[in-house]
Amino acid sequence: MRDWLVHIRRNEYTSLQTQIREALVSAILDGQLAQDEPIPSTRKMAKTLSVSRNTVVLAYQGLLDDGYLVARERSGYYVSDKALAQPPLVQNRRHAATENPDQPGWLERLTSHPAQQENISKPLDWQSYKYPFIYGQVDHTLFPLAEWRDCARQALGKRWLGHWTNDTWAHDDPLLVEQIRRRILPRRGIMASDDEILITLGAQNALYLLASLMVSGETRVTMEEPGFCDVRNIFGLKTPHVTLAPVDSGGVVLSDAFDNCDVAFVTPSHQFPTTVTMSLERRLELLRLASKRDFVIIEDDYEFETNYVNEPCPALKSLDDGCRVIYVGSLSKTLFPGLRLGFMVAPKELIRQARALRRLMVRHAPNNNQRTAALFLSLGHHDTLIRRLHKAYRQRWEIMGDALRRHLSFTARNPSFGGTSYWVEGPQTLDAEALFDQARREGVLIEPGRIHFGQRPRPRHFFRLGFSSIPEDKIDDGIKLLSRMVGEQNRAA
Amino acid sequence: MRDWLVHIRRNEYTSLQTQIREALVSAILDGQLAQDEPIPSTRKMAKTLSVSRNTVVLAYQGLLDDGYLVARERSGYYVSDKALAQPPLVQNRRHAATENPDQPGWLERLTSHPAQQENISKPLDWQSYKYPFIYGQVDHTLFPLAEWRDCARQALGKRWLGHWTNDTWAHDDPLLVEQIRRRILPRRGIMASDDEILITLGAQNALYLLASLMVSGETRVTMEEPGFCDVRNIFGLKTPHVTLAPVDSGGVVLSDAFDNCDVAFVTPSHQFPTTVTMSLERRLELLRLASKRDFVIIEDDYEFETNYVNEPCPALKSLDDGCRVIYVGSLSKTLFPGLRLGFMVAPKELIRQARALRRLMVRHAPNNNQRTAALFLSLGHHDTLIRRLHKAYRQRWEIMGDALRRHLSFTARNPSFGGTSYWVEGPQTLDAEALFDQARREGVLIEPGRIHFGQRPRPRHFFRLGFSSIPEDKIDDGIKLLSRMVGEQNRAA
Repeated sequence: MRDWLVHIRRNEYTSLQTQIREALVSAILDGQLAQDEPIPSTRKMAKTLSVSRNTVVLAYQGLLDDGYLVARERSGYYVSDKALAQPPLVQNRRHAATENPDQPGWLERLTSHPAQQENISKPLDWQSYKYPFIYGQVDHTLFPLAEWRDCARQALGKRWLGHWTNDTWAHDDPLLVEQIRRRILPRRGIMASDDEILITLGAQNALYLLASLMVSGETRVTMEEPGFCDVRNIFGLKTPHVTLAPVDSGGVVLSDAFDNCDVAFVTPSHQFPTTVTMSLERRLELLRLASKRDFVIIEDDYEFETNYVNEPCPALKSLDDGCRVIYVGSLSKTLFPGLRLGFMVAPKELIRQARALRRLMVRHAPNNNQRTAALFLSLGHHDTLIRRLHKAYRQRWEIMGDALRRHLSFTARNPSFGGTSYWVEGPQTLDAEALFDQARREGVLIEPGRIHFGQRPRPRHFFRLGFSSIPEDKIDDGIKLLSRMVGEQNRAA
Repeated sequence: MRDWLVHIRRNEYTSLQTQIREALVSAILDGQLAQDEPIPSTRKMAKTLSVSRNTVVLAYQGLLDDGYLVARERSGYYVSDKALAQPPLVQNRRHAATENPDQPGWLERLTSHPAQQENISKPLDWQSYKYPFIYGQVDHTLFPLAEWRDCARQALGKRWLGHWTNDTWAHDDPLLVEQIRRRILPRRGIMASDDEILITLGAQNALYLLASLMVSGETRVTMEEPGFCDVRNIFGLKTPHVTLAPVDSGGVVLSDAFDNCDVAFVTPSHQFPTTVTMSLERRLELLRLASKRDFVIIEDDYEFETNYVNEPCPALKSLDDGCRVIYVGSLSKTLFPGLRLGFMVAPKELIRQARALRRLMVRHAPNNNQRTAALFLSLGHHDTLIRRLHKAYRQRWEIMGDALRRHLSFTARNPSFGGTSYWVEGPQTLDAEALFDQARREGVLIEPGRIHFGQRPRPRHFFRLGFSSIPEDKIDDGIKLLSRMVGEQNRAA
């Protein structure tokens, strides 16, 4: 066997045994090892790779069991002829796309061009930065990994096999729905029945479903400015009539932007991205207005579990007697964003339609993840995690506030809700995009705020500093560095 | 403590220790146990529940660690005051939806009403039927559960924590993309680069994305009749111009239904639901026609891994020099449908737009599942599983064929591709819906075929018999029962 077929990387993520198996399977299936080709003995392979012979024996045993190898007495291991029962079909054709004159013009065929929309773009390698003031990721040191893995193990158990492997068409995991109804919604002041709850692939999937159901070319949508750019993009695909309503210290201003409106999108608990909490008076006035002007409200309560500063303020939905509010929540901010689990609460006629649309779009959220999350919630791990996050976030929130007051004196007051970020308004001359570029080179990751504005021209002097992923002891130094750079930019201007 | 707080169900899915924890957490968080309330000693609790004391000790220890309980010396266990730091907010308001005159008319507000579409409906409890000739579920006895769990465990490992917990916005797991490119596509004769592949939430999500990008009110779509009703429903939400093309023994007939067409949807390998394989001549003619009439083709290769009867026939996409074919595949048929993982292969300009739209719709498939599937593929478990499925399906396919010839002599020939179902045309007088009702009462689950037709009136004498989930030794008896019922219906008519 050629030497190059098995390489062992000792710093790899998987075990040595797994690596040996993967390399051999790969060589067999890719046709690099022919049928009946002899494989080195376990002794020789162990020596070549400098690994223990047991490791090799176990890897070979698995391959024997699965029919990739056969053992012949006194002769050793060979590639099984069964392993190649279905030879690869590759014809080595390659689309000569650029040369072929017949290719259809794809872009002209499309009814929309979402890739042309501007969107938040963040470095995938944010974890390699020393000062990652990034928003929307979790701090891995706070996550109860062992408990999550234990729930995942239980959820994948043989007894539940029938549940998690099946296509359940339009249905959700009843255990997860129950946990959301009993554990999560009451903390937001919301009572709902099971048929008023729909599990979604993250909160954003809920917003996409709602926009698809309620917004077409004629629909007039009002949303906050600055606001969540993904939502602006979603609405932008469906209608040209998106009106922007400014935000002040009491939340979104109930301006004439709401005069002609079918659907309003708001983030009352913790305005996105300014972190302002909408006052109770404003909330009641918004509900009165919705009834008077006959519009409906989508409430995105995206950070509902990070209210650690004041008494938790109930959701707008909890004040809504008229059923005009659709509530959207996320499990991503406390569990982890890569999981993609969220939910919506709405009158059951609407949930019924949204469920049918979700069936066509994705059927349902993966059942193994729904069950794992349900167990995690029911065993109290989620509550334990929230307490841990509150403690850590509160500390960071205070350290951030102090550092900002000391080093960046122009910044706004602390967000009163808590949350996981500060929204910073710099001097009018500040160019946050240039600051982002410079800071990034020095290991500081910030988020320019321009993308969150829908108006033109967009203000360039805002930025956001997340603190859900940055260690406490890095905060002060990071802000100090940033302050120096802002000062330099100011002097250059 | 009141006795009713902890109930142990010995036949439950979770361990006794987990059940004790769950019951106590639930009582604490729901406010049934007040702060500082004493909890029975481990000895007493063990006795009350008739479980070993160790079980109780371990459950209590977990609750101590997580701050739900505190232990006081010489006094025992109490509910911790920290556990209730954030009291539930419930206001016990209930939407008086039906009484309130102000509620908005939801249905009139919606731009579409997907819940009004007719769709496939299958009993969720199909596993409790003795003869489940159901389509599209997996046989749990064939699934390599231990290997999947091992991959899941590795995917959730600490070293990969940064990967699977993160929101990766629009990106896919590069390991899974690589496995699809190297392992799956070559078997279908397709060579693609990474930027021509997009991971989706099941094949249906790929179809929804494509319809959203390419189909609007003016777009003319042609699809097979009978055909996949979910796809007909998806197109039906976007355009009124859906034309149906009949299917014969060579696949979809290239009738005048393709004369005025922008997008064609076909299932060449294994027509859905008739199981016919499109002939090579028909495939080449379809490609010529697409170029001549300037339409594009969506190829749904939904059962590509179940071709165990003849030499595998390469995908239509592999013959496509002009880049007119978009290929859609699924991992659900071989892994498990509840996982919701699929993919599409298309020119990279189109993938770029589809990726941007997927970002708005769901962001990405859950990262833990992407990584688990990638490991499962790379370690050869998927190939082992396919060999196992082929063997089992081939056996069932033969037994089914024999039983049908013997007991239901009117049925069509065996599908030549293999697959996981037989499409049965009954006598013209047969009412398959009535047969379904009667058969269900006798423990036989079949699928009436009416739903797969778009024409009106829809033929009622077709039905489908899946064999991916029914044990071999049940097939003959099930078909015999069915034959008796068909005979009875025939005589009654």
